[in-house]
Parts: sequence; C-alpha cells; structure tokens
Amino acid sequence: MFKDTTTAAIDSLMQDAWKAFYEYRKLSLKQRAMFMHNIASGLENCGDELIQTAMQETNLPETRLRGERARTIFQLNSYADACEKGNWLEASIDTADPNKTPPKPDLRKMLIPLGPVVIFGASNFPFAYSTAGGDTACAFAAGCPVIVKAHPAHAKTSTMVAAIITKAAEDCNLPKGIFAHVYGAASEVGEALVKHPFTKAVAFTGSFSGGKQLFDWGNQRKVPIPVFAEMGSINPVFLLPGKLKTAANEIAQQYAASITLGVGQFCTNPGLIIGIESEALQTFIHDLGKTIQKISPAPMLHPGIVNAYKKNKGNALLQEEVHLIAESEITVKENEGLPTVATASGLTFLNNPVLHQEVFGPYSIVIRCKDINEMIEVAKRLEGQLTATLMATENDILQNESLVDTVKDICGRFILNNVPTGVEVCLSMQHGGPFPATTDSRFTSVGADGIKRFARPISYQNWPDHLLPEPLKNDNPLNIWRTQNNELSKETIETT
Amino acid sequence: MFKDTTTAAIDSLMQDAWKAFYEYRKLSLKQRAMFMHNIASGLENCGDELIQTAMQETNLPETRLRGERARTIFQLNSYADACEKGNWLEASIDTADPNKTPPKPDLRKMLIPLGPVVIFGASNFPFAYSTAGGDTACAFAAGCPVIVKAHPAHAKTSTMVAAIITKAAEDCNLPKGIFAHVYGAASEVGEALVKHPFTKAVAFTGSFSGGKQLFDWGNQRKVPIPVFAEMGSINPVFLLPGKLKTAANEIAQQYAASITLGVGQFCTNPGLIIGIESEALQTFIHDLGKTIQKISPAPMLHPGIVNAYKKNKGNALLQEEVHLIAESEITVKENEGLPTVATASGLTFLNNPVLHQEVFGPYSIVIRCKDINEMIEVAKRLEGQLTATLMATENDILQNESLVDTVKDICGRFILNNVPTGVEVCLSMQHGGPFPATTDSRFTSVGADGIKRFARPISYQNWPDHLLPEPLKNDNPLNIWRTQNNELSKETIETT
Repeated sequence: MFKDTTTAAIDSLMQDAWKAFYEYRKLSLKQRAMFMHNIASGLENCGDELIQTAMQETNLPETRLRGERARTIFQLNSYADACEKGNWLEASIDTADPNKTPPKPDLRKMLIPLGPVVIFGASNFPFAYSTAGGDTACAFAAGCPVIVKAHPAHAKTSTMVAAIITKAAEDCNLPKGIFAHVYGAASEVGEALVKHPFTKAVAFTGSFSGGKQLFDWGNQRKVPIPVFAEMGSINPVFLLPGKLKTAANEIAQQYAASITLGVGQFCTNPGLIIGIESEALQTFIHDLGKTIQKISPAPMLHPGIVNAYKKNKGNALLQEEVHLIAESEITVKENEGLPTVATASGLTFLNNPVLHQEVFGPYSIVIRCKDINEMIEVAKRLEGQLTATLMATENDILQNESLVDTVKDICGRFILNNVPTGVEVCLSMQHGGPFPATTDSRFTSVGADGIKRFARPISYQNWPDHLLPEPLKNDNPLNIWRTQNNELSKETIETT
Repeated sequence: MFKDTTTAAIDSLMQDAWKAFYEYRKLSLKQRAMFMHNIASGLENCGDELIQTAMQETNLPETRLRGERARTIFQLNSYADACEKGNWLEASIDTADPNKTPPKPDLRKMLIPLGPVVIFGASNFPFAYSTAGGDTACAFAAGCPVIVKAHPAHAKTSTMVAAIITKAAEDCNLPKGIFAHVYGAASEVGEALVKHPFTKAVAFTGSFSGGKQLFDWGNQRKVPIPVFAEMGSINPVFLLPGKLKTAANEIAQQYAASITLGVGQFCTNPGLIIGIESEALQTFIHDLGKTIQKISPAPMLHPGIVNAYKKNKGNALLQEEVHLIAESEITVKENEGLPTVATASGLTFLNNPVLHQEVFGPYSIVIRCKDINEMIEVAKRLEGQLTATLMATENDILQNESLVDTVKDICGRFILNNVPTGVEVCLSMQHGGPFPATTDSRFTSVGADGIKRFARPISYQNWPDHLLPEPLKNDNPLNIWRTQNNELSKETIETT
C-alpha cells in the first residue's frame, strides 16, 4: 500500500532537514513548546478515524488506544513544559577571574541540539512510541528536526499522525524540513537513513536484532552517531521467601494480570519469575496456573507477532526439563495469544540460554531455585534489563544484600512489591537499562530527561553578554535554573 | 624496564576490581571525597623525585610539571568537592498519587556508578591526564574502581603516582581492587582490558588511531561499553575581516605564542588559521612569520613524538601549493620541535584532505580564502573539533551568522577573541567535541561534569523511605539539590 521511500528521496529529505535544523534550533524554547502543544491539540481534536484506523491495523482495543492517545498527548505537553522550563539545558556559568594565574576566562556551557534525528517507532505502541511519540517529542524539544520511518504494521495510522505534525509545523510557520515521514518495509531504507551524513542520532523501539543492527550501522559510519535502541527485556521478578510466605496467592493474582496485560505485548512484561523451592512457591505456582487458565486469549498486534509468539513459546516449552504450569482454557483464535505459564529449576535455567530469551506475548516462566545462592547465581547470569522487581519484606531486603546489589546492577528501574508493567511518564522514570535492554543505559526514552539524548554541551568562552544565547545571558531572561560559579541559582550575574 | 602485564594477571585484577566495586559504591559521597583528597595530599607531599622523574621521561620543563601537578591536585580536590555536593547525581523524586488512574507509583531516580573503568593516560600530560588525572578522579567520584594502563613513555612517573593512589586507598581502608596499575607496550594489553567482561567503561586521551581502535573494541563486545576517547583536533581559528584589520599584529603575536606553547604539544593547539585574502591578512602572515622565527625550538616529549612531528610536518609542506611562511631561525637539536608556519589557499585546503590532519607539535597553517563564502565552505568541510575560535568584532559576528552557525556546529568549546590553548578546570568547561575530536560529544573530560561519564540513572519504584539510598530519602540527609515533583529543591519530602 505504501511504497518504500527511495534513497534519492531520503537524501533530499535529509538535505531539507539539515536546512531546517539551522532555522529551528534558533527558535526559543517557548516556540518549540508551542509547536509541541500544537501537535498535542491536533491529536486531541483529530476525531475517531485515527482510533478506528489504529484498531484495524493493530488489533488493540478501543479503550487501550484512546488511553494511549491520551498518554501521547500528555507526553507532548509535559515534555513541552520541560523544554520551556529549561532545566534540561544544564546551563552553567563560570565568570572570569583576571587575577588568577593564568587569568580565568569567562566560560558558559549549555546543551545544544545534535541535528536531524531518525526515529523508528514501535509496533506495540502505535501512538506513544511511534510517529508523534516520546522520541519525536524529545527531539523537537531538543531543537532537532525529525525523520520518522513509519512502522509497516501500522503505516496508515502513522501517515495520519504525520499529517497532524505537518499541519502543526505549518501552523507554526516552521520550515518544511522540520519533519519527514518515510516508508520502508526493506532494511535498505533503515540503512540509508542511519548512514546518511546529516543524520545525527537515531531512536528505535523494537526487537534486539533490529536495534542491534541500527547500533552497528551507527558505529560503523565514518562519523559514528548515537543510536538509542530500546530492545528486548524479560523483566525478572524475584520472589523472596518472607514475602512469598505471606502473600503467595495475592502475588499470583497480581502477576497473572501483569503477564497477560495487553496480551503481554509490553516491553516491561514480566517474562521471568524466580523463587526458592518451598511450599509457598508451590502455592504461588498453583494459584498462578489457576488464574491464567481463566484469562481470555486476545488478538495480538499482527500475524508476525502471533507467529513469533507461538514459535518462541513452543521452543521454550520444548526445552528439556521445562514444564507447562498452565495455559488459558478459553478457546483461542488463530490471531490470538494464549496466556501460558511454565516452570523450570534454577539449574535448568542456568544451563540453558534459550530460557533467557524474551518470548514476546502473554507468557512467563517460573524458576525454582534450590536456595538463595542459586537465586543470586541466576541474577548474576541475567543480561541487562529495563526493569527488575523484588517481591520482598523489609527483612528479606536487609538479609539479602548480595542479591539486592546484584539485581540493582542489571536493571534501569528497580521495583519493590509492584509489577513492572505500567511506565509512568515523569522525570523520575528511567526507561532504559544495561545492554541488551537498550544500547545506552545512560539515557531514558520516557520522561523529560529523554530530551538530553538529542543534545550535547558547548562552552562559550569569552563572549560578551549581548552575543550570548538567551539561556546564558547575565540577567537570565528565561528565568531558568543555572549553575553559577558552582551554585544553582536563578539570580542575575553581576560582572565587573 | 616494565614488563607487559599478562592476560591472566589482568583477569585477576579485574576480578578484584569487580569485588571492590560492590564495596566502594556503597561508600558515602563524603568517603569518596576523602579518598580523593587523600590522593591529592599524597601528590602534594611526595617531594621532588616525582617531578625529576617526569622531567627525565617527558622532557617537559620543571615549571610546567610543577604547574601540571598543582593542576592535578586542584582537579582531585575540586571533583571531590563536586562529588560530595551531589548535584551530579541528578537526584529526582516524583511522589505517588494513588488518586490518578492508574495510580502513580512513587519513583525516585539518581545516577549510580557503571563499574570498573579502564583508563589510558596521555603522553603529553604525565599528571593531569594520566594516572591520577581527571579521568581517574571522575571515576573515583562516580563510585567506580579504576585500572590505569601506564603510558609507556612515562611508565616510571606513572608507577610513582600509582603508589600514591595505592597508599591513599590503604589509608582509607578501601578494598585493594579499587585501583590497579598495569603495563602494556603491546596493543594486546589494551585489547584484553577493553574486552574484559568486568570492564564497564574506558577513558583515553591520545591519537585518533589509538582512540578509534578502543572505541571499535568497546562496540564489538558482546555487551558494548562506552569508550570516551579524546583524540586529535586542529582547533581552527577564523580571522574575521573587521577584527583582522584593526589587530593583525596583535593577533599574530598572540597566536605565535599559542602555536608554540609547550612545543605545540597540547590537544587544543591552534593548527589551522583561516583568513580572507586582504592586506590585513598579508600583515598577519608577515608578523606571524617574523615572530615564529624568533621562538626557540624545545625538546618534545619523546623520540616517537619528534619523529612523527618531522614526518607529518614534512608531508604537509610537500603538498602542492603549500608554502612555508617561516620557521624558527634558532638552531634546533635532534630531539626538538622546530616552530613552523605555512600557508595555502582556501581552494588548496578544500581539495586536499591531508591538510585537515593534525600535525602534533609547534606547527600551524594559515588558509587564505578568497571570500567569506569560501571561508564558510572551509568551516563546513572541517571535521569535529575540541575548540573553534573566532577572532571577530561585534559587527563581524552579526554580519556573518551563517559562518558563526557553521563553526558552532563543529566544536565543543566556542571561543571568541582568545586562544584555544589553556583548558580551565571548571564546571562550565566543555573538553570534548564532535567526532573525531572525541568519540562522544555528549560528555566532557575536564570539569566535574566528567563524573557523569561513569554513571547511569536508575529509578527506584515503590521503595519505603528507610530502604532508599541516602540521596533519595524523604528528609534529604545529604542536603543536595533534587528535582522534586518537577521543582528543584532541597526541602524535605512530605508523604502521607
């Protein structure tokens, strides 16, 4: 339906983006924020056709999509507010000291945008992690033009959202190169985008193989660029003995719901639950199984996802010493994901890397460790994760320092007595984790700190006040927080 | 004199470092700062043998080395202060809101250390960018153990400084794995260090070929790690016509001194000066040549550096249409670098990539552009730089927006009417720039923000106050700045 964009067309769009960059980055923070608010309004007022199109393309239910659109609007508005507030600029001023030997020059530092950003959206979030999603909002806030490659699984939805962005850019009199929307079922399109000399950063949400390929392309360029890929995660949950003893049934209910939420199609889906052999663990496994049996299968995003789920789950269940606990007893259709839980011993898990891999869908495996040391061993052998969760009493935490330290080391978000699904959009959210959860654990793709992915610091040395950019002027016209001679302040700088 | 450390020994040291990491990262910011102050005192009180050894190994004069040691002490102390102050932690708190749909959990974010850091020091700064230099100080502040590979050109100096660090670690009762010092003339040692699974980050200062190799190794690992390599830079200086007209002689004096400062062995040495054909440019070239003729040659760091200087300078001068302006008329010895300036047209520069390469030493080339457009073209074709300088009047700046924008885009530090040599140690310093000046323009290797290179954010979700790390507790026991529900504050958090 949508033809792949040609390499020649991509080059032309990147040229436009580069030109637009020189204009757009000069806009005030307020003007950038207005553009983002305008996109948010566009999404809010675009009517039901968008929701219906997304329903057709993704099989996601209406309530979920309305909620996701609201979240996307919230992201755009809240990152716009953060953009305008300017804390993300990390403005810093050290005034001159002519009496020092050698004399200290006036130095002022702030973040500036990197340049055009290429964004690959996620199939599982057609709004919030796609065309006008968090990556796009962050890039616009940073001062960067955006080139989105539509996800082939919801290209029509993406096209409609792209039109809203284009309209907002026109309303705000922005140069046309500020936003481009391209199509590419073939990997050559992605390669051309990542390798174009005017591309200065890449953001991606999706599979490990896809993200790693973009990362490698980014690093193999003559001038390497940052590639922020959010890839797979199995989001381990550790059931500590004290907690499990008192709440096995409650945790089973909570996790049956979390495993199957949105047909398990969240990057924070808990795909691995680790406990220690005990009566309480048997109760948990039993109750989890009973609950899963009663949860309805539901349609998954697209045939590729359903088939991958069936194949990967089947493969996991075929591994030696892996046993099915239960699957949903409700009739499943061809395009649906069947809620399923399995179990294996700690030793089996430690010896079989297949069980460390993500099975994207409503599936989780419960690992039965023989003791706490084996549980620590499992934690040590896990790869980097977006989240890790402890279900634990205070005593469990205090008595198992080594486990707590190890688990902390492998995750970006460290959860206590809660479920990993549900990613709050706020500054304190870290949505990112050690490789292979993401390619760069130092940045987040959710929350206004995500803006910093697309910026770099520059120092101005010895510039007179009237030639400095607004955020660095003596009288602080933007009224932003700055570190002034090592102290955070909004005060006017007095120079002599 | 020093044997290369074996791969087995490296593995054993990395195991120790990993163990030490789990202890060291739990130390309070105050304890980390005390350790760093202790190293600084050790350097201050170690007597003259260190200076004499460094003089023998580097040919650098005593005054310079005493100054560099003082700078190193200042770095350790000021980064220790910044460590303790805790702004670099970027602590952020969003309190729970149970009335939101779905309920918003309590989320608290801060930076935590990455793990053991491998550091490759610079030959041109035996103290400030070496064993106990800025990278080491930043890593210790972040909470990371450090493994330094001694620079083969000053291995004895490095060994003495390493002993000071080891002594400080003992004084502070730190685990022995907190610091290790290894030797390696062969590249296999570097490769084993970068590829060891317990290595979590790498810092390097040196040549492009060295830094790029480490960067590639870091990215080719099963689990890629950040490699912060500060590599070459030619630090272009743009002479704008208004300014040049009024100050050709003064600029010539200033730049003759900057080009030859420290025998041109600074990464911020101005290796490229760009002007527009005019009488004023002729005056500048004439005066620069006259001044250079009177500047004494001086010994360079080691035979490898002198030979590379002679070879690379010779090669630059052999290029078609490159003309010698002048060289020092004072007799030069075998181990000395001869101050030299050359010139070529803008067109010659644009067509010959050899002239874009760094000639490490007291050498610079003056490019004569036919007009401002050619100057912009030269700026556009330049690779990433640590610094770029404009010598310009206010009118020059206001009338040449396109040039100013282009130059800003290629540098980490943007200087007006000053020289690039001299890197002030303060928070507003950006010592880093677009590739190939460094491998990651988003970070600095000078100033306390350099600490952030070795840390990543983690979010704590739903943890009770008494189990949270100090920086995130309700009553803010460290009295640090935190972003609390989107506002910077040091206030106590009131929860219900």
